[in-house]
Amino acid sequence: MNLKALKEQVLTANLDLPRHHLVTFTWGNVSGIDRERGLVVIKPSGVSYDKMQLEDLVVLDLTGRQVEGALRPSSDTATHLVLYRTYPELGGVVHTHSTHATAWAQACRAIPIFGTTQADYFNGEIPCSRLLTPREVEEDYEGLTGHLIVETLKQTPILTMPGVLVANHGPFSWGKDADDAVHNAVVLEEVARMAWLTGQINPQAHALPDYLLEKHYQRKHGKHAYYGQTET
Amino acid sequence: MNLKALKEQVLTANLDLPRHHLVTFTWGNVSGIDRERGLVVIKPSGVSYDKMQLEDLVVLDLTGRQVEGALRPSSDTATHLVLYRTYPELGGVVHTHSTHATAWAQACRAIPIFGTTQADYFNGEIPCSRLLTPREVEEDYEGLTGHLIVETLKQTPILTMPGVLVANHGPFSWGKDADDAVHNAVVLEEVARMAWLTGQINPQAHALPDYLLEKHYQRKHGKHAYYGQTET
Amino acid sequence: MNLKALKEQVLTANLDLPRHHLVTFTWGNVSGIDRERGLVVIKPSGVSYDKMQLEDLVVLDLTGRQVEGALRPSSDTATHLVLYRTYPELGGVVHTHSTHATAWAQACRAIPIFGTTQADYFNGEIPCSRLLTPREVEEDYEGLTGHLIVETLKQTPILTMPGVLVANHGPFSWGKDADDAVHNAVVLEEVARMAWLTGQINPQAHALPDYLLEKHYQRKHGKHAYYGQTET
Amino acid sequence: MNLKALKEQVLTANLDLPRHHLVTFTWGNVSGIDRERGLVVIKPSGVSYDKMQLEDLVVLDLTGRQVEGALRPSSDTATHLVLYRTYPELGGVVHTHSTHATAWAQACRAIPIFGTTQADYFNGEIPCSRLLTPREVEEDYEGLTGHLIVETLKQTPILTMPGVLVANHGPFSWGKDADDAVHNAVVLEEVARMAWLTGQINPQAHALPDYLLEKHYQRKHGKHAYYGQTET
Repeated sequence: MNLKALKEQVLTANLDLPRHHLVTFTWGNVSGIDRERGLVVIKPSGVSYDKMQLEDLVVLDLTGRQVEGALRPSSDTATHLVLYRTYPELGGVVHTHSTHATAWAQACRAIPIFGTTQADYFNGEIPCSRLLTPREVEEDYEGLTGHLIVETLKQTPILTMPGVLVANHGPFSWGKDADDAVHNAVVLEEVARMAWLTGQINPQAHALPDYLLEKHYQRKHGKHAYYGQTET
Repeated sequence: MNLKALKEQVLTANLDLPRHHLVTFTWGNVSGIDRERGLVVIKPSGVSYDKMQLEDLVVLDLTGRQVEGALRPSSDTATHLVLYRTYPELGGVVHTHSTHATAWAQACRAIPIFGTTQADYFNGEIPCSRLLTPREVEEDYEGLTGHLIVETLKQTPILTMPGVLVANHGPFSWGKDADDAVHNAVVLEEVARMAWLTGQINPQAHALPDYLLEKHYQRKHGKHAYYGQTET
Repeated sequence: MNLKALKEQVLTANLDLPRHHLVTFTWGNVSGIDRERGLVVIKPSGVSYDKMQLEDLVVLDLTGRQVEGALRPSSDTATHLVLYRTYPELGGVVHTHSTHATAWAQACRAIPIFGTTQADYFNGEIPCSRLLTPREVEEDYEGLTGHLIVETLKQTPILTMPGVLVANHGPFSWGKDADDAVHNAVVLEEVARMAWLTGQINPQAHALPDYLLEKHYQRKHGKHAYYGQTET
Repeated sequence: MNLKALKEQVLTANLDLPRHHLVTFTWGNVSGIDRERGLVVIKPSGVSYDKMQLEDLVVLDLTGRQVEGALRPSSDTATHLVLYRTYPELGGVVHTHSTHATAWAQACRAIPIFGTTQADYFNGEIPCSRLLTPREVEEDYEGLTGHLIVETLKQTPILTMPGVLVANHGPFSWGKDADDAVHNAVVLEEVARMAWLTGQINPQAHALPDYLLEKHYQRKHGKHAYYGQTET
C-alpha cells in the first residue's frame, strides 16, 4: 500500500467515527501506519469531520517528526506513537470519547466479560488503567498515557485485546489497520452499553465461564475458526 | 411459494435487521424454510448487510447438507435446523445480539411479563436458558444450543412464545415465516427495553395478572380475536 | 371544519406518531371528533402507518355505530368514545405504547412533577390508574378502560391534565384536537423519560413546589399567559 | 459584524438546537449580542424551528426595550439580558430543556467532574442553583432567574464555566458568540449523559483529580494550549 492509499484509508476511518455515532464534534482521532516506510498518518487536531480533506492529514515518523502536512497533528499523537513502537502487529489506532465506553472509564471499572458478544472480539474483560501521577502528567502527558496503556495490558497479546479504558478519560482501540481499529471501537462502545445494562438488570451478573469465552473467541479467531468466509 | 420467492423473503428479512436497529455489523441472521421441499434458506456467515445479494444466500436440507450457494452458511445454522426439525409450525428463525434483549440474556434473567405490550405477543414471561456445560460446548455447540432452547421452552406451544434468551449470549425468535420472525425480534427487543426501564422505576414492579395477560393475548391471537383486520 | 378536513387532520396526526418515534409497528391510534355532527374519526385496527390512506379511516357516532369505512376500527375505540362522551372539551385522543411512558405505566407509578418542563403542560403529577378487576375485564374491557381513566382523573379539569397512565398497559393523552393530542403524547413521553433519569440521579428528588408549578402552568395557559404569540 | 450578520448567526444557532437533538418542539432559545450597539437578537416565543425566518427574530436593547421585530421575544429574555449585563465577555446565551442536563437540574445535583471530556470545557463541576423563593417568583421570575445564575456561579470567571443548571428547570449555557454558546450546550448535554451513566456503573465514582482537570483545561484553553490549530 502506498502512502496515498494509506491516507485515503485513514481519512475514511476518521469519517467513519461520526457515521457510527462515536464522536461529538472533534472528539476522536484515527491513525494508520505504513510499516515499511515507518510512517504514521493521523488526523489533524481540532478539525471538524465534515470539512476534513486528504491534505489535512498529518504524516509523521515513529519518533514524532512531522514529514508532511501543514496542520498540527492530533494532541493525542504521542500516545498513538508509543503503541506503534511497542506493538509491531498494530496497523491502526483509534481514540474516542464514545458515550458508554467513556462512562466505564470515568467509573474506573474494567468491562466484565458478560457475554459472547464481547468474547467474539475481546479475549476477556476489558481493563481500565490506573490514573497517571501528577509527576507523570507534568513530564509527558500523552506519551506516558501510551506507556500506561502498555502497563495496563501487561503481557496480553495485543490483537486478542483490541481496546482498553484510560481511567477518567476514555477508550483507545486498535487493529490490523485503521479500518479494523474503528471496527473494534464500535464493538467496544456496544459491549460497554450492553455491560452497563446487564449490571442494571442484575447487579450480581456473573462473567462468561472460561470454556464459553474460549469457544467464542476461537470459533472466530482461532486456528480452526469457522465464522465468516475463508479468506483466499 | 417457490425457492426463489423464499430466498427473496429471507434476503428482505435479513436486510430488515439493520433497518430496525437490531444488529451491529454482521451480528444477526435470519432463515426461512420451504416445508414441502424440506429446504432452509439462511444468511451466509460474516457477510455485511449492505453487500448481501440473493445469490449469497445458502440453501440446506434439514440434515444440514448444503444444496445451493458458494458461501459458508451462518455459524448458527445448526441451531436453526434443530428448531425447524423440532417444531413443524415454524417458518422462520432469527438470531440477533440486539442491545436490550442481549442485556437480559447476559443478566441470565427471564423478561417478566410487566404489561400488555408483551402480552400482545408473548403468552407469559420470556424464559432464559441455563448455560451449556463444558462437555456440551465441546461436543456440538450450535446444535446443542438448539436443543437447549427446546429444553427451556418445555411444553409451551411454540408460536405462543415466539422468542427466548440464551444465557450469556442473546435472543432467538421465530414465527410463521421469516418476516414474522423478524417482527417478533423487534417486539422482543422493545419489550426487553421497557422491562429494564420498568425495573429501574419500580424494583418491586409486579407481573401482569393472568386474567389481563389472557385477555390481551386472546384479543389478538385467540379464536375470537378482534385486533387487526379479518384476513380473507 | 368538514368531515374531510377532520379525516385529513386525523390521518396526519396518526402519521405523526412514527415520525415522533412514539410507536413500534401499529402500536398506537389517534382519533378526532366533529362535535357538531357528533362523529368520531379513528385509525383502523392493525393497519401499518406507511400504507394508511384517507379512506382507511373509520367514522363512528358517539354510540359506536360505524358510519363510514370498510375496515374495523382500532380495538381501543370504546375507550376513546367514553372520553369524548365524558369530556365535551376534548377534540382528539391518542393512545400509544411509547417506551418511557409505558415503563411508568408498567411500574404502576404516577410521574412526579419534577420540573418546569412538565409544569408547562401538566398541572401536577401524571396519575396512574388502578388495574381493572377480572369482572370488569370480562364485562367490557375497552369501555371500562375509558371509565377507569375518568375515575383516575377524579375532578381534574381535563385539559389541565392532558394525559394519564393506564396501569400495566400504557399512556393515553388528549387535547383540543387530534394534533394537540399528539403534541401532548410527545410531551408525556419526554417528561416520562426525564422523570426516570431524575430518579436515577437522585432517588430522593423532590417535586416542584406548588408556587413554581403554578407559575409555569399559568405563564403558558393562564389568563395572563405570556408564552408564545397572542393568537389573533 | 453588522446587525444582519448577527441575526443570521442567531437564526443558524437556533436551528442548530433541533439538529443537535437538544430540543423538543419550541423548548429552547438562543440569543446573541452586538456589544458595540448594545443590541441583543433573540428567538421569538413559541415559534417552531422549521418555520422560523430571519424577520421573526426580535431585537432588544440591554434594558429590554424592543427595537425590531413584530413578534414577542422568548419568555426567557429577561434571564438572557441579566447575563449580558453582568458579564461583558458573553457574546451568546442558550437555554434548552435537553434531556440529560434537565434531569440533573430536576435532581438538583451539580454534575461532578468525572472525566477529561468535561475538563476540556468546564473548569470543574457544573453547579446547580437553589430554588427561587415564592417572593422572588412573584416579583420578577425571569429576571431573578438571571440573578440566581450569577449567584450560583459566584466568582467563577464566566467563560471557564460555560453553563449552569437551574434547579427543577434546566440548563443555561453561553459562549463568546451564539454559535459557541450552542456548542457548549451540546457539550453540557453530553457530559450530563456520561455523568449519569458513570454514577450508574459506579456509585462511588470519584472526581477527576485537580492536576488532571488543570492539565486538560489548560491544554485546550490555557496560554500554552496545544489542542486544535493556532488561529491566525
